Amino acid sequence: MHHLSTARGLLDSHDVDAVLITFIPNVRWTTGFTGSNGLVVLRDDGAHLLTDGRYRDQAREEVPGEMEVHIMSNGLDSGLADEGLLAGAKRVAFQSDHVTVDRRTRWGDMFTDVEFAPVSGLLTHAAGVKSRDEIDAIAASQRITDEVFDELLSWLRPGLTEKEVAAEIVYRHMKKGAEKMSFDPIVASGPNGALPHARPTARTLRDGELVVIDMGCFLNGYASDMTRTVAIGEPDDDMEAAYAAVLEAQEAALAEARAGMSASDLDAVARDVLASHGLDDAFSHGLGHGVGLQIHEWPRVSRTSEDDLPAGAVVTIEPGVYLNGRFGIRIEDIIVLEEEGCRNLTGSTKSLTRID
Amino acid sequence: MHHLSTARGLLDSHDVDAVLITFIPNVRWTTGFTGSNGLVVLRDDGAHLLTDGRYRDQAREEVPGEMEVHIMSNGLDSGLADEGLLAGAKRVAFQSDHVTVDRRTRWGDMFTDVEFAPVSGLLTHAAGVKSRDEIDAIAASQRITDEVFDELLSWLRPGLTEKEVAAEIVYRHMKKGAEKMSFDPIVASGPNGALPHARPTARTLRDGELVVIDMGCFLNGYASDMTRTVAIGEPDDDMEAAYAAVLEAQEAALAEARAGMSASDLDAVARDVLASHGLDDAFSHGLGHGVGLQIHEWPRVSRTSEDDLPAGAVVTIEPGVYLNGRFGIRIEDIIVLEEEGCRNLTGSTKSLTRID
Repeated sequence: MHHLSTARGLLDSHDVDAVLITFIPNVRWTTGFTGSNGLVVLRDDGAHLLTDGRYRDQAREEVPGEMEVHIMSNGLDSGLADEGLLAGAKRVAFQSDHVTVDRRTRWGDMFTDVEFAPVSGLLTHAAGVKSRDEIDAIAASQRITDEVFDELLSWLRPGLTEKEVAAEIVYRHMKKGAEKMSFDPIVASGPNGALPHARPTARTLRDGELVVIDMGCFLNGYASDMTRTVAIGEPDDDMEAAYAAVLEAQEAALAEARAGMSASDLDAVARDVLASHGLDDAFSHGLGHGVGLQIHEWPRVSRTSEDDLPAGAVVTIEPGVYLNGRFGIRIEDIIVLEEEGCRNLTGSTKSLTRID
Repeated sequence: MHHLSTARGLLDSHDVDAVLITFIPNVRWTTGFTGSNGLVVLRDDGAHLLTDGRYRDQAREEVPGEMEVHIMSNGLDSGLADEGLLAGAKRVAFQSDHVTVDRRTRWGDMFTDVEFAPVSGLLTHAAGVKSRDEIDAIAASQRITDEVFDELLSWLRPGLTEKEVAAEIVYRHMKKGAEKMSFDPIVASGPNGALPHARPTARTLRDGELVVIDMGCFLNGYASDMTRTVAIGEPDDDMEAAYAAVLEAQEAALAEARAGMSASDLDAVARDVLASHGLDDAFSHGLGHGVGLQIHEWPRVSRTSEDDLPAGAVVTIEPGVYLNGRFGIRIEDIIVLEEEGCRNLTGSTKSLTRID
């Protein structure tokens, strides 16, 4: 999967003689190259990937045939000069939201005649619209996470620590072929669930408590992301009522989501449902975020987002309530925005499951 | 563990009115704050940590009492202005090897009267000299990795895939309390071992082959890192000879390592041993790297390094040979440089273990 022709369009849209792509997820998106060290140079008369000797064969196999691969032994930036890749360029666009001040200074010292044009979010929106292959890749990654959750319902039990559950979640993702986790799993029981970004502790799962489980992996470079909240033993009435409210909010958002909608309007759908239950103050984060080669990417779905949601965007829908010192609940699916609605890539049950 | 007074010394040594620390491992090193979002401002008359609402209680508990904690709801940089933290400052040092061009530009727009002084490696050398507590933390992290390796010798067997072995390694680290892995484990069997940075594949471990296993975790924020190479079944004579050469090279480096030595001289000790066996061309990377709050940090131990090794530096010693299409071998320990030699923090056996 690569998007070289889209990326080459940047030469015209930014009116430059060369484009430098340095942010690794964008290098992969543009070229298909999966290595951890790479620099892309786009010119009117050619496209170049610079990397190091570790990736000699792999780079050549992965990138489109029309790209030239340059193996550099002395750092990638030196290759810009040594290989003459900016020859004749007057104006060069670069990713100013990713390039450090030192690197920019080094480029200026190396190429005193070049005007380096800073561009924020050079590929942010373009990479936010997923191709069918990319959607399939995210769905395949999510299937692993769904399988792990399905199994988890049979092995989860009171007395396990949050850390033990997290270790088991990682293990089962890896055994199913995940490349790595897309983030460290969150397993937050009882009052820990009230911290939206809790880290697993030595606390044991206890009867009468809720557990928030947030997990995902990378497969073929694309991320999955899902949260479920389960009850250990018998949940109390407040827990059941809050769970029902979060689920109602999530399902309302799923029902309304469609391409062309503003992200803040979609956030409001869920937030309004929680408000009708007096729980909007307990929903302390945005409704969701884009997912792709990065676990968090554009677009942001939140109250303050100014984005519209394009067809092909893949985003999480994850309302939650966090009651300090008591418990937390979050339910998260990933969806694809389509013209007439959305398609849910998540297959796991959302009934409040009881673990005995 | 914090190093606030050392960091405050930067105000004088760089002749500035304020120092901004933004690189997260350096934020932790300076203040003890373990959150993922933080900005430190050091002034003559005070020290400040800016973070967000997720870390309200945690930040206050973790940082030294003399530090002021600022909880920002609208991004950390806006707090610099809103809380008046650069008031009266004429010259402000920042980490130009970590700050993006966009962030630097934003600061310039916010503070038109301030001269922002770029500093590369602001805390690189200071953080490279470990305190006793930090060395203890690295040793504790390495003990987990040693235990996992000791167990691995009893469960490793032919027929497991590299990915399965990697999953088991992660699982056992996590069960023993590791916070996370310090990098994705490398499990590289047969010809895959000839790639120094191989990723685990679906290839099964086979009789008569070597397996390179490189793994480490974080515990209390500090990294471990160890490589061992084991034989599945009977290794052939070439494998045994190459293993003996790598072990001889590693032991020679351990015997010579001491504070004050130049890093390139230490690299040469191992490289010369391999050369005496005709294997120096097969040793395609540097001898080692610093380890601490980051898995790779200063100092670099390599042919081209211009660093001297200070007392208290913790570095890996990891010679290897990589024979394309055939096999690879690497043996890696972590050591502390001391005045009279070095102390090895790694406890695992280095005999060539045979797995049947």
